[in-house]
Amino acid sequence: MERLLRKCQIRNQLVRECMAECLGVYILMLFGCGSVAQVTTTEEKKGQYLSINLGFALGVTFGVFVSRGVSGAHLNPAVSLSLCVLGRHPWIKLPFYVFFQVLGAFLAAATVGLQYYDAIWLYSGGKLTVTGPTATAGIFSTYPADYLSLWGGIVDQVIGTAALLLCVLALGDQRNGSLPDGLQPVLVGAVVLVIGVSMGSNSGYALNPARDFGPRLFTYVAGWGVDVFKAGGGWWWVPIVAPCIGALLGTLIYELMIEVHHPVHHPVHHPSHLSELQASCQRATEGKTVLQLKGCTSRL
Amino acid sequence: MERLLRKCQIRNQLVRECMAECLGVYILMLFGCGSVAQVTTTEEKKGQYLSINLGFALGVTFGVFVSRGVSGAHLNPAVSLSLCVLGRHPWIKLPFYVFFQVLGAFLAAATVGLQYYDAIWLYSGGKLTVTGPTATAGIFSTYPADYLSLWGGIVDQVIGTAALLLCVLALGDQRNGSLPDGLQPVLVGAVVLVIGVSMGSNSGYALNPARDFGPRLFTYVAGWGVDVFKAGGGWWWVPIVAPCIGALLGTLIYELMIEVHHPVHHPVHHPSHLSELQASCQRATEGKTVLQLKGCTSRL
Amino acid sequence: MERLLRKCQIRNQLVRECMAECLGVYILMLFGCGSVAQVTTTEEKKGQYLSINLGFALGVTFGVFVSRGVSGAHLNPAVSLSLCVLGRHPWIKLPFYVFFQVLGAFLAAATVGLQYYDAIWLYSGGKLTVTGPTATAGIFSTYPADYLSLWGGIVDQVIGTAALLLCVLALGDQRNGSLPDGLQPVLVGAVVLVIGVSMGSNSGYALNPARDFGPRLFTYVAGWGVDVFKAGGGWWWVPIVAPCIGALLGTLIYELMIEVHHPVHHPVHHPSHLSELQASCQRATEGKTVLQLKGCTSRL
Amino acid sequence: MERLLRKCQIRNQLVRECMAECLGVYILMLFGCGSVAQVTTTEEKKGQYLSINLGFALGVTFGVFVSRGVSGAHLNPAVSLSLCVLGRHPWIKLPFYVFFQVLGAFLAAATVGLQYYDAIWLYSGGKLTVTGPTATAGIFSTYPADYLSLWGGIVDQVIGTAALLLCVLALGDQRNGSLPDGLQPVLVGAVVLVIGVSMGSNSGYALNPARDFGPRLFTYVAGWGVDVFKAGGGWWWVPIVAPCIGALLGTLIYELMIEVHHPVHHPVHHPSHLSELQASCQRATEGKTVLQLKGCTSRL
Repeated sequence: MERLLRKCQIRNQLVRECMAECLGVYILMLFGCGSVAQVTTTEEKKGQYLSINLGFALGVTFGVFVSRGVSGAHLNPAVSLSLCVLGRHPWIKLPFYVFFQVLGAFLAAATVGLQYYDAIWLYSGGKLTVTGPTATAGIFSTYPADYLSLWGGIVDQVIGTAALLLCVLALGDQRNGSLPDGLQPVLVGAVVLVIGVSMGSNSGYALNPARDFGPRLFTYVAGWGVDVFKAGGGWWWVPIVAPCIGALLGTLIYELMIEVHHPVHHPVHHPSHLSELQASCQRATEGKTVLQLKGCTSRL
Repeated sequence: MERLLRKCQIRNQLVRECMAECLGVYILMLFGCGSVAQVTTTEEKKGQYLSINLGFALGVTFGVFVSRGVSGAHLNPAVSLSLCVLGRHPWIKLPFYVFFQVLGAFLAAATVGLQYYDAIWLYSGGKLTVTGPTATAGIFSTYPADYLSLWGGIVDQVIGTAALLLCVLALGDQRNGSLPDGLQPVLVGAVVLVIGVSMGSNSGYALNPARDFGPRLFTYVAGWGVDVFKAGGGWWWVPIVAPCIGALLGTLIYELMIEVHHPVHHPVHHPSHLSELQASCQRATEGKTVLQLKGCTSRL
Repeated sequence: MERLLRKCQIRNQLVRECMAECLGVYILMLFGCGSVAQVTTTEEKKGQYLSINLGFALGVTFGVFVSRGVSGAHLNPAVSLSLCVLGRHPWIKLPFYVFFQVLGAFLAAATVGLQYYDAIWLYSGGKLTVTGPTATAGIFSTYPADYLSLWGGIVDQVIGTAALLLCVLALGDQRNGSLPDGLQPVLVGAVVLVIGVSMGSNSGYALNPARDFGPRLFTYVAGWGVDVFKAGGGWWWVPIVAPCIGALLGTLIYELMIEVHHPVHHPVHHPSHLSELQASCQRATEGKTVLQLKGCTSRL
Repeated sequence: MERLLRKCQIRNQLVRECMAECLGVYILMLFGCGSVAQVTTTEEKKGQYLSINLGFALGVTFGVFVSRGVSGAHLNPAVSLSLCVLGRHPWIKLPFYVFFQVLGAFLAAATVGLQYYDAIWLYSGGKLTVTGPTATAGIFSTYPADYLSLWGGIVDQVIGTAALLLCVLALGDQRNGSLPDGLQPVLVGAVVLVIGVSMGSNSGYALNPARDFGPRLFTYVAGWGVDVFKAGGGWWWVPIVAPCIGALLGTLIYELMIEVHHPVHHPVHHPSHLSELQASCQRATEGKTVLQLKGCTSRL
């Protein structure tokens, strides 16, 4: 069996990263949209708004766990864009990442549509609508609250995504304090939880162009029709553009207020040596915290 | 006292593993079914659907904690099957594992039946029914929602269990990122939480043949009668067969999209030496992170 | 300031342990009873049953954090008893531990009574009653549900405390898998959370003689009168006796099914040396994971 | 880009610390007030009291993550004051910290006001009131329940903040048990969660002069007017004064019952050497647990 599987091995790094991003966003949206479907079709009998917040939060957590070792687990075009701007990710990979993130979200929406087919049919009386009392398009992508102005919606998404990037950059900033390796995906999920709890009611905290556009395409294709683009005064482009602006804003704030001011460190003697050791340790050990013996070897 | 206990020591590895699986599933189902019993018999006054999700999630977490060092904490025939197929568990042990998993679930259901005897009696008016307004069979095993077609139910269980395996395999895949030792049971519980939050309303997210069949046997024996097999159009076999298919599907997806593509590593020099050291450290230290001194000793 | 504080230093180990147990149970009950008071006096407007579960769970977590380094954080006479029986705690200390655990719970109940004085006064119309629609004695200690028989209550408390001990012993069993040092208090809290979610509705999951008797004494003294001992058919002794039986039962099950069967290990060469090193490291480092250099020194 | 950013580097330590405190409190209050705004303006349709508890808890967690490496993440004048009294923070920095903490809270309140502008307008009918059925001032700062006496309010805030400091000091007390580096911010958030769950209904658990006064200033300026200082019988000074008293009380209790009694340790040989090593390791490694090689080098 293992030999059979090994025959399928792909060595191209970019292909591997694209598959990881696709599967990561798939997991994120499978749990995220699934939780909205459960709350919507049971009319809050089997879950409430908090369980939707949990669905997206843990969706992000396990999306990161699935892909972190291969692609770095961006799972969000706005995150990929920010990392490119910061020079931490090559621009050339950006379109590939974005495409596979959208694809993952599309496939997840299709899976949720399949899994909740009977439930959606019953709840909506067989009519797939975008607005009205039994609207079901909101299971898949976000729509603004009735009271929200266009500018209000843009501000909402910009602030939300800025907060997301601020926290995620802080979690990854080693000079601002270390983090056990396996805790980072949990905490990124917790950021999404708290944003859902505090910034979710205006327009459903998309924060992520792929998370919103992929499922919207699915609903367009699957029977909800062109209304998914018309509803909310042509809302569909806001969760694509505003998160990108917000992500850059949040990145800028964190960099200018915290990260650039960390004292410049003159790297100690054997950093490359160290990371080599570290890498070999990691390969050789299974399921144990890896130790790096810096001082030891350099002093011998 | 300790001397007395030591006289009971069993050295047979398989017996120990079976006891661990049995106790692990027992803990899982004690908390899981208990939470359903609490929500059902108090008519949601002392808990809601979310507390059922928490009951099963933390049930899994502590079921894993109880058994992980002895049997590896499968706690689910579908998981055992997948590991056998992947060549990570001997086929010969499979029937033993499955039997004791089912036994643990049966005993837990009996314990919950005992603990909630008065409450169930009051709630059901002394009539143990499988369907109807005061049905109580759902405390123990899963039944599909009225609207769910048979195919819909199978799809639901296949997708749910595939998602479970996808995430669990990612958590255990060292080359996709390390995990502190004690965090893994918590995160496996979190997978079950998010599945309950996003895929629970169609048919109660069994995901586990033992979790469903053991308690169903208990209800059959304890007074609910043959209806437990007839209800939902003969639903009982779906949570046995579909999770096995789903587990294999999820395993295949994770292997083909992520794990087989990890770069092949040529093991560094002293891996066996290392794991020996590691093992001796583990025995000698109590409650501390274990360190492996690769570079140090090899350079001396 | 620091010099002033140091003058108050007490060197007697038992006194220190008793203060730690007292403060630990105080924290546990301050948060635990506080959450019941909040839910009761706001008539579920600011919290529901789940928030009571969270209150006791996190109460336990921080009670353990406050006392773990000094007394080992038993916080429960039934736990102390089990550890004595297992030979892991000296019998001579048992009565001291129990007394200060009860004292801590009493003081916490008094603090909650003070903090919620106005709210209880308003809610109860100035009448401190044990039963009836505006009963407030349940804020402090547990009372059985109306439907519960005496035997049902005993069984409920025995099963609950057995489950508690089973999980807590598994968390502490190094040979069943290691645990990062700071995670243990969180997971002990999670055990209490899941018990509250799955075994709380019958009689309020006391699980702990001190948790129940200390506050009951407070209510007796503070104006609820002798009814606190009469209510529930003289219920008061059940949460004292049954948890002790349950704790012993849970201990026995875990020992007989898991712990005694761990392979006997011949301790490696330098364990005392190691733990000495480990201890000195721990003193010398602040906030960092401590490393033990077994192989390194022994090979030099 | 990176070069551009580096030009903005500020080397002054105090300025960096003030920016970190400001941004930390900003994050805390952005999520905290945001969650109240969401629950209030949706009339509990998208969140309940528990989600407010989560908003403030995770707000604290990520506020700590953002600032811990730079300023130590006080985020609360009462905490800064306690650390000054304990001699762990220089008095000279206190006014700067307090000012920037209040500023951060003010700016966060303004941001929430902007983000929820449309929602608040709709909910309040365009009338920004402090009391009454559609009052919205409570989104930003705390007001006492109607039944609460002034003394009751003071006692409530003193007990709450004392509990906060007790737990936070225990988490940071290395001699009472170690804690993985990245877990501390999560647990400080959990303390705030449990206080919200158990001590929130009387007066909204401010616990923090900056958290309350900054947003109150914002509401005063932004259109709620002088009522924000008059309401609740001139309540505004209580969440400033009482938390400071409570923090000192909690500090005193923890010191006198636990910390001063830890055995005095004669520091082992190379502590300064060790921390130097530790620091250089931390700079050189990325995302890995740092190891300190005490015994190794000292024995060579």
